[in-house]
Amino acid sequence: MSKVNVAVLGATGMIGQRFIQMLEDHPFFELTGLYASKKSEGKKLKEVLKLRDHNLKDETLKRKIETMEVEEVGRKVRAVFSGLPSDIAGPTETDFAEMGVAVFSNAGAHRMDPDVPILIPEVNPEHLEAVREQPYYGETGGFIVTNANCSTTGIAVPLKAIDAAYGVKEIFVSTYQALSGAGYPGVASLDAACNVIPFIKGEEEKIETELCKMLGTYDGSSFRFSDMKVMANCARVPVIDGHTESLVLKLRDEPSLNELEETLGNFRGEPQDLKLPSAPKSPIIVRKEADRPQPAMDIYAGKPARARGMAVSVGRLRHSNGYYKAFVLSHNTVRGGAGGSVLNAELAYAKGLL
Amino acid sequence: MSKVNVAVLGATGMIGQRFIQMLEDHPFFELTGLYASKKSEGKKLKEVLKLRDHNLKDETLKRKIETMEVEEVGRKVRAVFSGLPSDIAGPTETDFAEMGVAVFSNAGAHRMDPDVPILIPEVNPEHLEAVREQPYYGETGGFIVTNANCSTTGIAVPLKAIDAAYGVKEIFVSTYQALSGAGYPGVASLDAACNVIPFIKGEEEKIETELCKMLGTYDGSSFRFSDMKVMANCARVPVIDGHTESLVLKLRDEPSLNELEETLGNFRGEPQDLKLPSAPKSPIIVRKEADRPQPAMDIYAGKPARARGMAVSVGRLRHSNGYYKAFVLSHNTVRGGAGGSVLNAELAYAKGLL
Amino acid sequence: MSKVNVAVLGATGMIGQRFIQMLEDHPFFELTGLYASKKSEGKKLKEVLKLRDHNLKDETLKRKIETMEVEEVGRKVRAVFSGLPSDIAGPTETDFAEMGVAVFSNAGAHRMDPDVPILIPEVNPEHLEAVREQPYYGETGGFIVTNANCSTTGIAVPLKAIDAAYGVKEIFVSTYQALSGAGYPGVASLDAACNVIPFIKGEEEKIETELCKMLGTYDGSSFRFSDMKVMANCARVPVIDGHTESLVLKLRDEPSLNELEETLGNFRGEPQDLKLPSAPKSPIIVRKEADRPQPAMDIYAGKPARARGMAVSVGRLRHSNGYYKAFVLSHNTVRGGAGGSVLNAELAYAKGLL
Amino acid sequence: MSKVNVAVLGATGMIGQRFIQMLEDHPFFELTGLYASKKSEGKKLKEVLKLRDHNLKDETLKRKIETMEVEEVGRKVRAVFSGLPSDIAGPTETDFAEMGVAVFSNAGAHRMDPDVPILIPEVNPEHLEAVREQPYYGETGGFIVTNANCSTTGIAVPLKAIDAAYGVKEIFVSTYQALSGAGYPGVASLDAACNVIPFIKGEEEKIETELCKMLGTYDGSSFRFSDMKVMANCARVPVIDGHTESLVLKLRDEPSLNELEETLGNFRGEPQDLKLPSAPKSPIIVRKEADRPQPAMDIYAGKPARARGMAVSVGRLRHSNGYYKAFVLSHNTVRGGAGGSVLNAELAYAKGLL
Repeated sequence: MSKVNVAVLGATGMIGQRFIQMLEDHPFFELTGLYASKKSEGKKLKEVLKLRDHNLKDETLKRKIETMEVEEVGRKVRAVFSGLPSDIAGPTETDFAEMGVAVFSNAGAHRMDPDVPILIPEVNPEHLEAVREQPYYGETGGFIVTNANCSTTGIAVPLKAIDAAYGVKEIFVSTYQALSGAGYPGVASLDAACNVIPFIKGEEEKIETELCKMLGTYDGSSFRFSDMKVMANCARVPVIDGHTESLVLKLRDEPSLNELEETLGNFRGEPQDLKLPSAPKSPIIVRKEADRPQPAMDIYAGKPARARGMAVSVGRLRHSNGYYKAFVLSHNTVRGGAGGSVLNAELAYAKGLL
Repeated sequence: MSKVNVAVLGATGMIGQRFIQMLEDHPFFELTGLYASKKSEGKKLKEVLKLRDHNLKDETLKRKIETMEVEEVGRKVRAVFSGLPSDIAGPTETDFAEMGVAVFSNAGAHRMDPDVPILIPEVNPEHLEAVREQPYYGETGGFIVTNANCSTTGIAVPLKAIDAAYGVKEIFVSTYQALSGAGYPGVASLDAACNVIPFIKGEEEKIETELCKMLGTYDGSSFRFSDMKVMANCARVPVIDGHTESLVLKLRDEPSLNELEETLGNFRGEPQDLKLPSAPKSPIIVRKEADRPQPAMDIYAGKPARARGMAVSVGRLRHSNGYYKAFVLSHNTVRGGAGGSVLNAELAYAKGLL
Repeated sequence: MSKVNVAVLGATGMIGQRFIQMLEDHPFFELTGLYASKKSEGKKLKEVLKLRDHNLKDETLKRKIETMEVEEVGRKVRAVFSGLPSDIAGPTETDFAEMGVAVFSNAGAHRMDPDVPILIPEVNPEHLEAVREQPYYGETGGFIVTNANCSTTGIAVPLKAIDAAYGVKEIFVSTYQALSGAGYPGVASLDAACNVIPFIKGEEEKIETELCKMLGTYDGSSFRFSDMKVMANCARVPVIDGHTESLVLKLRDEPSLNELEETLGNFRGEPQDLKLPSAPKSPIIVRKEADRPQPAMDIYAGKPARARGMAVSVGRLRHSNGYYKAFVLSHNTVRGGAGGSVLNAELAYAKGLL
Repeated sequence: MSKVNVAVLGATGMIGQRFIQMLEDHPFFELTGLYASKKSEGKKLKEVLKLRDHNLKDETLKRKIETMEVEEVGRKVRAVFSGLPSDIAGPTETDFAEMGVAVFSNAGAHRMDPDVPILIPEVNPEHLEAVREQPYYGETGGFIVTNANCSTTGIAVPLKAIDAAYGVKEIFVSTYQALSGAGYPGVASLDAACNVIPFIKGEEEKIETELCKMLGTYDGSSFRFSDMKVMANCARVPVIDGHTESLVLKLRDEPSLNELEETLGNFRGEPQDLKLPSAPKSPIIVRKEADRPQPAMDIYAGKPARARGMAVSVGRLRHSNGYYKAFVLSHNTVRGGAGGSVLNAELAYAKGLL
């Protein structure tokens, strides 16, 4: 089976570079171009490299950044991975879809569009069908799929497992979000150093609405949102990569902690069944140590090598007052960013949409 | 009125040194001795100084640390401020009380004793009366008063204000706790740097029980705990001083955010009425900026100078799904530590107990 | 004696705000206006506050930022304190001087001008006379005085003391510079966190040339540079305030370490003789502990209160292979920034130049 | 050729765990045991794991820590890798050598012994011969080889290249050392956070003497130290892994910067000629970017995969006042720790000493 030609949009940003990292030598996709705005045109990737964690090939590091012209890029590729900044992502992604390109976006612009799925293959693979209702799809084969916001993704995977088994009624989540979530240059070091910033613009609203869209249903023509209640408090902490999140849950049933732990650890979704290349064998790693998960130790959970950073870690399961408590950790620019969209594209590929 | 002779126990620790800082030139108390274990005996305070924020007088810095012998210390002072480590605090504090010394403790050892108040003067000043029921009190005049755990204190003050006005039914709290809360040497830098540690031994239980004891009632012979539900998730973040805490509250009434804000900002307690020296004029500072309170900016809230670090900051008040949300910040070794016990002693002094 | 009307230029920056902090209730100067670019016009200082260390009065925090129009500002004040970014500082400061305003600048633009002194009152007070040779001075009474670069200032003070006593021939300096030295927003947190950045644009050249200008002589019409050799390596480390610098020195004489220590500790300059308000009683604090000075403990060295952060700390004096070694620490935005220029203005005031 | 049985001593420490990481699936060595003190006996490696960077196999993580009994361990292995704390390393390593075991030590205890080489295979491979003069060698075949101190190692490799080509006369080095260099728990987070600690016990002396021993000669019976002058200033900065060091050098010749750059980039030593498994193809990576090397980006320099972290990065080459300046970076627990000793053992193996 021949590889599908793809491009990365926003190749100079944190998410764009994670896309490049995850698409190097990909079994389904051939990365044909790295695109960004004019000011980086002609620079080599290694001149604008921002990742601390990287092991890119020399030939990848020497690739040149090109200027993004929608018409030109669109003629060359079947799919684009969009790490564009939110202000230009909206119209640009629409332009690509209209040209017949499949857009796998990390941006928030289209997430709440009525015919665009927020897709996490372990959580709501059936929502991918919604792309067939997008106006472009019938005409050109183009469509838009978004991943979820980074802090939503980390909790959506375990919440799916719990909801399916025991019914989730209320979610209280507080986030300890990493600096890389704000992109580059992002947060000023003078604000970040030895500090907590208890505000991330739009983040709480994203968690509260995206979860309900993803954990709701798709009836073949529209999304019906879940009626679970979500209360989010979001804060930035001086961590480089990895969003930690505290959870308190009210469930319909009352499983024992052992049952809950087994439900989480044994959870498998469609990416696991389909053996998608970036799918971690175990999408949820249950940590039993007293003080895990931690960003320092657990952000790259996930096996095999291609799924490094794609597993979500859950630990400190507790039960009191009729509520369940836990801490969850996920890699915000891998599982909650570029890796999420790559997995979405792998699912679309496996379903014959590419 | 002559000053009361006092001593600091555990003078080489983070809390002990905050005690010294807050007792320098105190209008009620005369600091007659700094005590610690044998290994620091004879060292000058400046040789074991750990505070980053300090402005101590040269003569204070030159004071010598003495070895703590209960019998000897107890004969010299009417009160001790205990920054002892938890394992030795329990019996040592009892020994002092039996000798007729008033003990103002930062340690957790006696907090759950049935006749020992966990005292925050703005929250439950009437609980101080419980010391009269302690067995030592009648015999020697000695007694034990504890402050609350640092992460409990920060939220107890605003919760008192809210509970009195609107009735608090459920509390969901997640903490972003500073390194100084673990004492010195405390957390290894290799664990703390760029990391979140989602576990602090015993901390969640302390919040869940201490709040209910303090926000309950004292009927003259015993404490009746509040039946509000408290669900706590505690984590350590790489911040030096200042515990940030996210709150979600279920209230009996449904005040507007403006009403809630006014209730908090206008709250005054007995320390304010009595004009105690370390009492901040406004015990709760309401921040209206989008991204406050922050440890970097707000840990030293509180006026006048002697009450620096004694005010609690509250910000990001929100209302959704029938719940109220906020972020709270307090200085964990001032308001939530040494300063809390100094204020307790000031209340005891004002009430004629010293 | 009536106070001199002054203004702060660049009031929204790190240095501008330190100027405001140091000019609050100043005995010589009346702060009549806070100026910045249009985008902050009309905002209150507290809305754009960046200092972590502050204790400003409420009335100061409520002052409004005005737009900087040279003509208008220049009519109102005798002196301006310039915390302007380097690109606009050059021409703007000249405009002010031409209007008859005395400019005390933190910017590098005019430092190497042949008639502009780089002034540190303890180091080269006689250089202040050079302003009389500036073209504006005779016509309007306006003139320009600059402080030294932050990393130069910290070592210039002890080097002056050592040079005067023993002759400095070679200086090897490596810097450990704080984040606040890059202004705001400055360094991206993703670059700064848990990292060392071994490059600060233009910094090494500034140290190497400014030191020679300051430690040289002024003969009444021109500066003769010192011929000491200076080799600088500059790096940024994740510290908020406080530049640490390692020194290796080749001296003409070979004092004992005790003699060197006494020379440093007993050093006094003209600001001390004149008892200028921001002059620390001891401009150099010699630390004898094994592991000091440290930014965490020593950045605010300097007494009395108004001179807080104005003393330079020196420690770890060693002698080997015929070279002397030491570590030096100074507060980069106080002694090495706004405080340096305020002290310059105080000297000018005392000398009748204002 | 069959593999040599080896063990790791001090398996619960930072260096011990790097040893385990580097010995997993090693082509020459079979790791037969992980040893530490009694308090960790029976724990699995994953229960005491301290590395943030790891990708150990599950079976390695499940290996048990055993108690170290010299007699017993010595009977099982031909060589031990010692990550023991310095106080017990000295006599324990001697005991092993007396039993006929080859000791590859990261500890400082024996470095200055007259018959023990401080070995860096790219720098002084001929010094390995000195082990034949050790008393144990003739009797039992046991011997002791040490690696250099971590901050010495990073600069020794480029200094060797430069010394061989141009003659090094004077070295001025200032270090920016990572927290992992202090072991675990090491530096308290309250000391490390946002701070510089300008003192590391014994470190400056180690650099100053070890360099002269290694860059000197071995004449078949004793070491003749180099007479180059070394002046070191050592400081700890809040970085997890990676020692950055600033260098100023006085050379005998005056190469151009281009020549110097080529000399460094083209340098190859005996490990490269012998193609030892942990030898990086290029032991020195010359960085040409304005602001590199940085710990965040460059600590894992070195190819192929087994040599990850074994290359030293050099950047910012400059020339002024007759001196050469540079910044050097190396991974302190890989190249400057466990990896250094593994490479030493590989050299010994290739030379038939094991």
